Amino acid sequence: MNVGFVFWILGKLIFIEGLLLVPSALVGLIYGEYFQSLNYFMTAVGLVATGALSFVFKPQSKILRAREGLAIAGLGWIAVSLFGALPLTLCSEANYIDAFFEIVSGFTTTGATIFREVETLCHCTMFWRSFTHWIGGMGVLVFVMAILSFNDSRSMHIMRAEVPGHQAGKLVSKMQVNSRILYLIYVSLTVVEFVLLVFGGMDIFDSMLNSFATAGTGGFGIKNLGIGQYQSVWAEWVITVFMLLFSINFNLYYFILIGSWREALKSEELKWFGRIVVFAVISVTINVLPLYDSLSHAFRDVSFSVASLISTTGFATANFDLWPDFSKVILVGLMFIGACSGSTGGGIKVSRIVIMIKTAIAQVKKQVSPRSVQTVKFEKKLVDSSLQSGIMGYLTVYICVFVVSLAIISLDSFSMVTSFTSVAACLNNIGPGLETVGPMGNYADMSVLSKLVLSFDMLAGRLELFPMLSLLYPGAWRK
Amino acid sequence: MNVGFVFWILGKLIFIEGLLLVPSALVGLIYGEYFQSLNYFMTAVGLVATGALSFVFKPQSKILRAREGLAIAGLGWIAVSLFGALPLTLCSEANYIDAFFEIVSGFTTTGATIFREVETLCHCTMFWRSFTHWIGGMGVLVFVMAILSFNDSRSMHIMRAEVPGHQAGKLVSKMQVNSRILYLIYVSLTVVEFVLLVFGGMDIFDSMLNSFATAGTGGFGIKNLGIGQYQSVWAEWVITVFMLLFSINFNLYYFILIGSWREALKSEELKWFGRIVVFAVISVTINVLPLYDSLSHAFRDVSFSVASLISTTGFATANFDLWPDFSKVILVGLMFIGACSGSTGGGIKVSRIVIMIKTAIAQVKKQVSPRSVQTVKFEKKLVDSSLQSGIMGYLTVYICVFVVSLAIISLDSFSMVTSFTSVAACLNNIGPGLETVGPMGNYADMSVLSKLVLSFDMLAGRLELFPMLSLLYPGAWRK
Repeated sequence: MNVGFVFWILGKLIFIEGLLLVPSALVGLIYGEYFQSLNYFMTAVGLVATGALSFVFKPQSKILRAREGLAIAGLGWIAVSLFGALPLTLCSEANYIDAFFEIVSGFTTTGATIFREVETLCHCTMFWRSFTHWIGGMGVLVFVMAILSFNDSRSMHIMRAEVPGHQAGKLVSKMQVNSRILYLIYVSLTVVEFVLLVFGGMDIFDSMLNSFATAGTGGFGIKNLGIGQYQSVWAEWVITVFMLLFSINFNLYYFILIGSWREALKSEELKWFGRIVVFAVISVTINVLPLYDSLSHAFRDVSFSVASLISTTGFATANFDLWPDFSKVILVGLMFIGACSGSTGGGIKVSRIVIMIKTAIAQVKKQVSPRSVQTVKFEKKLVDSSLQSGIMGYLTVYICVFVVSLAIISLDSFSMVTSFTSVAACLNNIGPGLETVGPMGNYADMSVLSKLVLSFDMLAGRLELFPMLSLLYPGAWRK
Repeated sequence: MNVGFVFWILGKLIFIEGLLLVPSALVGLIYGEYFQSLNYFMTAVGLVATGALSFVFKPQSKILRAREGLAIAGLGWIAVSLFGALPLTLCSEANYIDAFFEIVSGFTTTGATIFREVETLCHCTMFWRSFTHWIGGMGVLVFVMAILSFNDSRSMHIMRAEVPGHQAGKLVSKMQVNSRILYLIYVSLTVVEFVLLVFGGMDIFDSMLNSFATAGTGGFGIKNLGIGQYQSVWAEWVITVFMLLFSINFNLYYFILIGSWREALKSEELKWFGRIVVFAVISVTINVLPLYDSLSHAFRDVSFSVASLISTTGFATANFDLWPDFSKVILVGLMFIGACSGSTGGGIKVSRIVIMIKTAIAQVKKQVSPRSVQTVKFEKKLVDSSLQSGIMGYLTVYICVFVVSLAIISLDSFSMVTSFTSVAACLNNIGPGLETVGPMGNYADMSVLSKLVLSFDMLAGRLELFPMLSLLYPGAWRK
C-alpha cells in the first residue's frame, strides 16, 4: 500500500471539504445566525489549512493501484464524515456520535436522521445537511477528479471504487472530461428541479434544499412531517419525477445530450427499471385503495412512495408504515432492488438484479437440458463467468454484512421489524424503514453501538461494500 | 418430455405408497381403532390397485433424461402427498386442503402442522404423519430405486433431482447398491435412536414416532407441548445428538462403515457445520442466560434448539419465540443455513453457504489485486465457474421464490414476522417459525391460498427448487 499517496489525496479531499463548508457559513450570515456561521467558517478554515499541507508535501511515489483506489475511497469518505460532523455538533444539541451518524447519512445520501424535530435546527446546519447529500450523490472523489488533473489509469481506480454499479462506464476517453460531463448533467438537472419547485410556490431556501436532497437521492426532510407538510400536489409530482430521473444511469443523459436518443432508450436496465416501477405502483395502489378517499390521492401517494424507495431517496408524503403488509413487502422489496447503475441512488441496483434473475432462469433451463449451452446476455453483451462470480461475490458479501449488522442491532431491544428495516434502510442508503425508524420516526433512540454499525453500513452501501471491507483486509495494507 | 415413462414411474411410486400405508392400518388394529384402520386399509388397497396398472402397461419409450428426472421428482412428490392426505382427512377433522398441507409437511420433513391439539388424533394418523417424515427424509424415489432395478444413468437423473446438496455424490459405481447402502445406514441410525429412547423410559409408540421424526429431520410433535412435555433430560439429549447426526452427509457414515474414519473427519463441510453449531450454542446461551435459573438448563435448551433449527427438524423444548431478539436472529440465521448436503435436513445447506462465502472473500481479494488469480477450493477440489454460476442461480431462484411467497402470504393479515418466518420455516423445511407460527403455535389460521403457497414452498425446499420450477417451465414439456 502506497500510504503516502493515499494521505496526499486525503489532504486534497479535506481541503476541498473546507471550501464546500463556506456556502453553509454564508447561509448563516444571510439569516443572521452569526454564532453558528462562525463555527462553520472556523471549521472551513481549519480544514483548508490542514488540507493545504498536501500542496507543500509531495508523496515519494505516485503509484496508484486498485488497493490504493479502494483505500482512498474508504478512508476518504470516513474522513469527510468525521470532519463534516464538527460544525453540526457545535451548532446543535447532537453529541459527536449523533452528528457523525447524521453526516455519514448525509454524504452517503441515506437520509436517516437522529433529529426528532428538524425544524428547530439553524439554517446553516439545515443547509449543510442537505448539501452533503448533493456532494455525496455524485461522489466526493469524482468531484476531486473533476477539478484536479490526474492521469487516466489512476483516476479509473478511484472512479471504480466510488461510482455505483457493477461496471463503471466510460463515456469519453479522458477521465477528467468524463467527470466534468457527469457533473454538468447533475448540476443542470438540479437547477431545473429547483426552478420548478420555486415556480410551484415553495420558498427559495426550501426549494434549494429539497433539490439537493432529491438530486443526491438522499432524502433528509427539512420539515417535521416531510414533503407532505407542503400540502402541494405540484411539489409532490415534481419531486416524484425527479427522484425517478436521478435513479437513471447518467450515461443515458450523455447519450441524449449528444443526440443519441435511441441509444438511451434501448437501455435494458432502463426498461426493467420502468417495468418494476409500473408494477409496484399498480399493485400497491390497488392494495391501499380502501384506505383512501380517491383514486387520484392514492395514486399520488403510492407513486411518490415507490419513487422514493426505489430511488433510495426516502422522502415521505404518506406514512407507509400504516399500509397493509402486502404493500410493505413490495416497498421493502424496492428498497433492496434500488436504482440503476451509474445513478446517484443506492440499493443492490437494477442491473445486478436483472443479471441474477437471468442467471437463475438459465440455471432452470440448464437443469432441464444439462447438455445445452445457456448464455446470459445483458445490454446485448454476454455476461461472462468473471462478471457472474463478481456479482455472486457481491451478493454474498452483501448478505453477510446484512446478517452481522442485524445480529448486532438486535442487541438493542427494538422490534424485529425495526431492526431488520433499519439495516435495510441504511445498507441501501434509503433512510426510513418501518415501525420505530418508519417515515415518521427517527434513529435517535438507537444505542451508540447501533449508530456506529449503521454508519458503517451506510458507507459500505454507498461505496458498494468493497472499499470498506478492503480496509478490514490485512493483505491490502502490505507494502 | 417422455410423458408415458414419467407416468409409468409414478404408477410404481403410488403402488409403493399403498404398501407403506399398511403399517399405519396395523397400528390402528393394535389400538382398537377399527374404523380408522379400515380407512387406511381401503386407501392402501386403492393405491396398490391403481399403481399395479403400471405392471400391465409398459411405456413405449424408456428414454429418461434430466427433464424426465425432474418431472418424476416434482410430480411424484405432489402425487404421494395428494393420495397420502386421503386417510388423514377421513380420520380427523381436517379438511382436504389442511390434510394435504399436513402430509406435504410430513413428506418434505418440514413438520409444520395445522392441528391445534395433536394429542386428540387417533394412533394410526399419528403413526402415518410421523412415518411420512421417515419416508420423505431419505427420499421416496431413492426408496423406489433401492428396490427396483434401473440402469445407472437413468437412476442418476432421478437421484440428482431428489438428493439434497449441490452435487449428488456417488459412493459405489452401481446406483442401486448406492441407494441400498444409504437406506441401511438410515435404518440403523433410526433403530439406535429408538432403542436409546426406550432405554430412557419413553414408551415404545412415542419412541418410534419421535425416532421417525428425528431421522427425517421432520419434527412433527406428538405432544401438545412438544418434546419438552416428556420432562426427560435423557430424551432431550438423545434427540439433540441424533438431530445433529442426521444433519451430516450420509456418505461420511459410509466412509466410517468401510473403516475410513480419517476420510470422514477430513470433510470440510463437517468442520464448518461443527463451527457454526458451537458458535450458535455459545452465543445464544450467553444471551438467554438471564432468563434461566441454571447454566446447565440454559445450555440444554439452547443446544436442543440450535440442533433442531440447523438440522431443520423443528422440535421444541423451549419457546424460543420468547428469547431476546439477538438469539432469534441467530436462530433464524440457522434456519437458512440448514444441514449438510446429502443429509435428510433442509435449508440452503452448509456446503453452498461455505462456497458462497469463499467466493465472496475471493472477490474482496480480487478487488484489492485485480490481476491476481483467485481460486476457490472446497473439499480440496477447485470450485469451477459452472458450479459457481449454479450456486448463484440457486441462490437467486431461492430469493425469488421467497419474495413472491412472502408477498402472497402477507395478503393474510398476520404480522410481518409471522409472514416472514412462516415462509422461511416452510421453504427450509423446518416447521415452526416465530409469533403465530412459533414453536407453540401452528398454521391452522392461515388462508387456503397461503396454505397452498406454503405447500409449494415445502416441496420446492425439499426438492431444492428446480424439480418444482421445471414443472412451470413450458420448454420442459416439449416432445
